[in-house]
Amino acid sequence: MASIRIRGAKEEDCGEILKLIRELAEYEKLSDQVKISEEALRADGFGENPFYHCLVAEILPAPGELQGQGIGSKIIKKVAEVALDKGCSQFRLAVLDWNQKAIDLYKALGAQDLTEAEGWHSFRFEEEVMKKLAGR
Amino acid sequence: MASIRIRGAKEEDCGEILKLIRELAEYEKLSDQVKISEEALRADGFGENPFYHCLVAEILPAPGELQGQGIGSKIIKKVAEVALDKGCSQFRLAVLDWNQKAIDLYKALGAQDLTEAEGWHSFRFEEEVMKKLAGR
Repeated sequence: MASIRIRGAKEEDCGEILKLIRELAEYEKLSDQVKISEEALRADGFGENPFYHCLVAEILPAPGELQGQGIGSKIIKKVAEVALDKGCSQFRLAVLDWNQKAIDLYKALGAQDLTEAEGWHSFRFEEEVMKKLAGR
Repeated sequence: MASIRIRGAKEEDCGEILKLIRELAEYEKLSDQVKISEEALRADGFGENPFYHCLVAEILPAPGELQGQGIGSKIIKKVAEVALDKGCSQFRLAVLDWNQKAIDLYKALGAQDLTEAEGWHSFRFEEEVMKKLAGR
């Protein structure tokens, strides 16, 4: 079995992180929505007032088949730890309704589907719309 | 007609902000989910690395009937401005599926319902679950 270590991301990880973002988007059939560059990832996550925080799972030795190693639940557990340390009282994830594997995992770990339970919908304003609203 | 000024929130606004959070939660029939205190609002929004940013709409003179003054769309436009200035390429809002007034406004301003269009669901891990996951 592979050995898995979960750690905070460093700026040097941004190239690999972008690759993973692209792979995830491909799986989600949303590749056209990935517009971010490695430079923007570096600037947004590792400046004075970072826009995001990121955890990285290091797997040694890197096996061909990674599923079934419990990486997903290990990362979620780490997110729970980090969030509690920061004083958060909850955290949320966005999941596509056809991604049954992810839904099953999150539910098994104790998450609640807020869209199903309470009717929350996610609305997005895109850049073009934002510019129009801001009169630019 | 009332005069409306939208500005960044200050720490001294936190008492009023909490009142508005409670009024919104009451409207959303989710009052039991408001657990935050004024002290936490102050600490989370006005420390070194703030967890949130907040805009406040000042209305003068405060009229009895506030709806129909376009406050909602003025705030959304201001959010678009601030977000563009910070380098954001989109922003998202969570809306309850029965809140037709809000849905109509966001759609009229150009937002897309991602839950409807792409199937995004919002999953929440609550504090009790987080503690169990973190082994605390």
